[in-house]
This record gives sequence, C-alpha cells and structure tokens, in this order.
Amino acid sequence: MQPPPAEPGMHVTEVDTPALLLDLDAFEANLDLMAATLAPTAAKLRAHTKTHKSPVIARLQMARGAIGQCVQKVAEAEALAWGGIPDVLITNEVVGPRKLARLAALATIARVGLCVDDAAQVDAAAAAAEAAGRRLTVLVEIDVGGGRCGVRPGPDAVALALRIAASPHLIFGGIQAYQGSAQHIRSPEARAAAIGAAIEDSRRTVEQLRQQGLDCPIVGGAGTGTFAQEAASGVYTEIQAGSYAFMDADYARNQDAPAFRQSLFVLATVMSTAVPGVAVVDAGHKAVPTDSGYPLVHGMPGLEYVGASDEHGKIMVREGARPGCGDKLRLVPGHCDPTVDRYDWYVGVRGDRVECLWPVAARGAMA
Amino acid sequence: MQPPPAEPGMHVTEVDTPALLLDLDAFEANLDLMAATLAPTAAKLRAHTKTHKSPVIARLQMARGAIGQCVQKVAEAEALAWGGIPDVLITNEVVGPRKLARLAALATIARVGLCVDDAAQVDAAAAAAEAAGRRLTVLVEIDVGGGRCGVRPGPDAVALALRIAASPHLIFGGIQAYQGSAQHIRSPEARAAAIGAAIEDSRRTVEQLRQQGLDCPIVGGAGTGTFAQEAASGVYTEIQAGSYAFMDADYARNQDAPAFRQSLFVLATVMSTAVPGVAVVDAGHKAVPTDSGYPLVHGMPGLEYVGASDEHGKIMVREGARPGCGDKLRLVPGHCDPTVDRYDWYVGVRGDRVECLWPVAARGAMA
Repeated sequence: MQPPPAEPGMHVTEVDTPALLLDLDAFEANLDLMAATLAPTAAKLRAHTKTHKSPVIARLQMARGAIGQCVQKVAEAEALAWGGIPDVLITNEVVGPRKLARLAALATIARVGLCVDDAAQVDAAAAAAEAAGRRLTVLVEIDVGGGRCGVRPGPDAVALALRIAASPHLIFGGIQAYQGSAQHIRSPEARAAAIGAAIEDSRRTVEQLRQQGLDCPIVGGAGTGTFAQEAASGVYTEIQAGSYAFMDADYARNQDAPAFRQSLFVLATVMSTAVPGVAVVDAGHKAVPTDSGYPLVHGMPGLEYVGASDEHGKIMVREGARPGCGDKLRLVPGHCDPTVDRYDWYVGVRGDRVECLWPVAARGAMA
Repeated sequence: MQPPPAEPGMHVTEVDTPALLLDLDAFEANLDLMAATLAPTAAKLRAHTKTHKSPVIARLQMARGAIGQCVQKVAEAEALAWGGIPDVLITNEVVGPRKLARLAALATIARVGLCVDDAAQVDAAAAAAEAAGRRLTVLVEIDVGGGRCGVRPGPDAVALALRIAASPHLIFGGIQAYQGSAQHIRSPEARAAAIGAAIEDSRRTVEQLRQQGLDCPIVGGAGTGTFAQEAASGVYTEIQAGSYAFMDADYARNQDAPAFRQSLFVLATVMSTAVPGVAVVDAGHKAVPTDSGYPLVHGMPGLEYVGASDEHGKIMVREGARPGCGDKLRLVPGHCDPTVDRYDWYVGVRGDRVECLWPVAARGAMA
C-alpha cells in the first residue's frame, strides 16, 4: 500500500501527485440526486462497489437509502463485509471452490448472494453453502443483450431458478438482468430501445417464474447511463449504478448525459515543458487508464491530453495557454472504475482544502 | 495488499485467478540471453524496474551483470533502495520539493540519480541535496525523437550540464537519451533509422560536452525493441531495457522481434459459457490493461480474446475449441508493464508447479 499523498488541512496544490481527488461537494450532490431520482419509483438503489471500492462510500450511499451494495468479485465482497456493510450481492458468476468457500464464510457477518448462468454453478454454490453451514442467496443471470454472461431469458432461466429453489442450502433471490452494452450508447433513442428490450425480457421471465410458483424478489440491473428507465419500468426492483457518484469523460459523451457532476479527478503535475508546444504530466496510463479514451484537462480549454505512456501524459498546448513546470492540473478520467482501482487513497477536497483521506479498501480486489 | 493467490508446491491449476504467473524457466533464459548479448559490447545493463517493480528481480539481474537499476518514479526508487539495490537512477524528471526530499533521503542508503530538462529543476535538485547534506547525481535528458521530455541535443544540453557541474551539491552524471517511440516501430529498417539518429544526437552532444571540459560518464537509453543497436554504437554506456525479462504481445508484433521468450502470463478462469460461441474469463481490463491491445490466449489457437470490460474478458470460441466453465487459461498481456502493476504477487512456476511467490513491491508506486 502506498503512503497517503496528502494530509487533512492541506491546500490542494500541496497534494503529492498523481493523486485521486474527490470533490466532496460534487460527490455529495450526486448521492443526493440519485436518492431523489429513485424516491418516487418502486426501485431501490443497490450501488455498485466495483466503481468506488470503499466501504466508507458504501455507507454514505446507504445512509441515503441504498438497500445494500453489489460487487463483481469475492474479494470486493470481503472488503465490504469486513467494513460493516450488511448486504452484498455479487452480480457475477463465482467459479471455483476456493472463491465459493470464501464467499460462504462471509455469510456469518453479512447477507451475501451471487449469480449463476449454469447448472454446475448452482451445484457448486450449494456444496459451498452446505460446507459452511449457511444458506446463500442465488440469482439467475439472464442475457438481456450484452452477449457476455447469462442464460437466455425465459425457460432456460426458469430451469436454473427451479434448480436453485430445490436446494436446501440456497435461496432463490431473483434475476440479474444488466444491459451493460447499452450504458454508453450515445443516442438516447437507441439507448432507450436497448433497455426497453431488456425490460421486456425481464418481465417475461418474471411471469414465467411465477407460473412455476417462484416469486422473484430481485430484478436487478441498470447503470448510470440508463437507470431512470429501469427504475420507472415497474419490473426492476434494484438499481446497480456505480459511476453516478463520480462520473467520467466517457459517460459525459452520452447525448442527454446523466445530470451528475464530475466529482473525481486525477491530480497531476506538469513535469516537463522542454519540447515546444508540449507539456508533460506525471500521469500516464498507469495513473489514468485509457480503455475509454484519454482524460480531459479540467477547466483548461487550451490543453489537450493527446498521448499516454506508462508514466507520462503528453498534453498539447494551444491558444496561448502556458502551463509551467510544477503546475498541477485536474484530469477527468476517461473511465472512473479502473482509475479508482489504481490508487490506495481518496483525497477528499472541499473547495481547495483537503478534508479527508479514505482508503480504497478493495483496490486490486480481483479474485 | 491482496492475499497471495497460491502457495509453493501447488499445481498451477490450483492457483486462484486472476493471477500474475511467471514462467521461471523462460524468465531465467531471458536474463541469461540479455547478459550474453551485452557481454561483448562496451554497454552495461541498467535494467528498468518500471517493468518488474521488484527488488527480488532486480537482484537476479544484477547477479548477471547489471550495474544498477533505473526507475521512473521516486516511490519506485524507494522500493528498490529499501530492498537492497545500491544504485538507482530515475530516468525521468522529478518535480516538486516533497519528491526531491524523499529522493535525497534515499542517498543515505543507495547511490541515487535523476534527470532534468530545465534550469529550475537543476536548482531545485541542488536545494534538496543541500538540505539533505548529500550530493545527487543529475543527468540531462535530451529529446532524441520521442517529442516528450528532454532538451534539444547539443548546446541546450551543454548549458544544462554546465549548470549541474557548477553546483557543489550535484554531480553531473551524463545524458539520458531514450528513444521510446522507436521501440515498437514494426519495420526493422525504420526502427534502425530512428535509433541511428538518436545515436548521432547523443554522439554530438557528448563531443560538445567534452569541448566544454565535461566528461559524460553515462549515456543511457535503449529498450527491448532496439537495445542491440545502442549497445553496439560505442556511444551508449548503459542499456535500460525492462520488458526483455517478460515480453508481451506488442513486442512480439515487431518484425525481427527480440529473441526473448514469453515468461509473463495472466492466469484466468473461464467463468461463463452460457452465450453460444463465447467463453468469458474473469480477467477484464482491470486485470490485463488494454493500452497496447487485447491479450492473446496462449497455446489455444481456437480462442481469441475480443473484448474487455472492467472484470470480464470476452473470448470468441472457434475451430471446435470447447473451453469449459472452470478451465484456466494463460493470457499473454498486450503490454507487460501496466499488467504487472495491477498485481501484488508474482506466482513463479517451474513447469506446472508453483515454486515461489514474490511481492510486486513497487505496485502502485506512482509518486
């Protein structure tokens, strides 16, 4: 674990770089806006820890009405349960006896669940639950258009659900119906059409489950790009958005982008201005992953981040801008999730002052 | 820090995933090949820790003749010095008093140096060295074609060198002349032309320094894609290759690719086969960064990694291949450096057995 890059009370220009900066005013406004948006709907927030990796942030979300958290990995579930979060759903398949045993062991301190898309996974989860002497909640993941994981909606899902319900060691928890590939569709119409299809797939599957006598407590899915539609559907019961707390450059490229504020930044230092027309910052793709494009330079229209190597970010200097060696810049990450996972600490700032440091407790929790 | 994913003696199929696997036979062969290639030249290896992040591996390189290590970051230099490496050069500018003070503090246990490309950086390094009561070795970085950091070769470099030499707190160490953008030029002819120009820039600068009475102990640069040319030049004295120990998919795409073996893999588990024609592994771009393209599936010609999300890798299944849920696959990273930096542990394997676990001591050392 790396040492903290700042101390409470510091001015933001004193923070060592690269650092993960959280603008607390914007962040809190985002949490409030999500709570207000969901309040009139039947859906509840189960915020996604894959984005923030922090039980501290999870607790702030739950204080505003989130009913629990979801994660993608057993190691993330551990970080949350150890950090006091009482209800954690792995919105993902968990494969391998070692991982399942770790998950079942958590059931002594939290309500934990997982997803399956294969009969053998049901049997493996039941075996792990039996060995631990605990019951695990199991959801059936259905493929609602992402083409990644999940059985087909309808009869295949019902068959798996019946297998779960038949096990004395498992609780059938419902269906996982996340349309991930729709989140970043730029056109609002095309985005709405993709989610409309996912809602219909889910509705049909819930009906067929009911015809088999199975209640479906959870219909889970949705992300920051589409959650209002799932929440209003009357079908989805749990909203799994994560990025809304931070935002990033890629979500901001959606037309009718979600109305959340950019709260997450990578603070970087200009470390070279020797090459004319170029400023180099100390944050390359190790510090700001580029899977969803280069970061933006916040509040500096004359500066464009145009190239990332391991430890260097190359910025083209335009329009008479003159960044000096030692200047600190705020970068808006292309993609918030992998960016957070590069850091051991959040530096929480209120205006220009460091207010708090929070550990990224599930940093690197990939298992 | 995440718990180790394996224990010595395990069969490789028992290793928890995703895990960073090091094939020790291939790795040792790579270290031997580099030592043998440089032996007949005047150049010495100063291997780059930005790739491996490990004092354990640094010591293995030094046991085969490396004269020290280079790094990009002060936090990496700390990990090396604390791990017993006696000679560490930061092949990069170090900007900010906090970073310089940390570096100067290391001078009590190791010989440390850094690069500059600006007069103010010289003065700041001198102030930090004076405050610590130690002398720092300072190199002038010249831009030999990368267009990133570094002053122009020739008079600009000489002026900075004279400024360093004039300080009682600094030692002029030489020039840093790394042509990074040439490393991945696919055509051997174009690659050789780019390095030829860098060699001429360096030779000219050394001559002009000598005319000013300045000896140039280090001419440093070169990477895995080009090092044989710099080593044979009679100009470069130190070779800063790093990737050669591991290799990756991107270096393998060079024509006349370097003759090193792939020793580094990400071990991943197939976690879903529910969607026809697709196998999903538990290693997405958080586990295998995609800045230099998707990973390859090692030894499985019917499988192609075609899409990465945060925690999922999507593999197209062709030619009758039938990966099963729970199967473990070795992925060849697109780019070894950022991949290593995602993990807390190397799992060293000899054949199919886990032989050792080594910490990635400088994981996340971005400051």
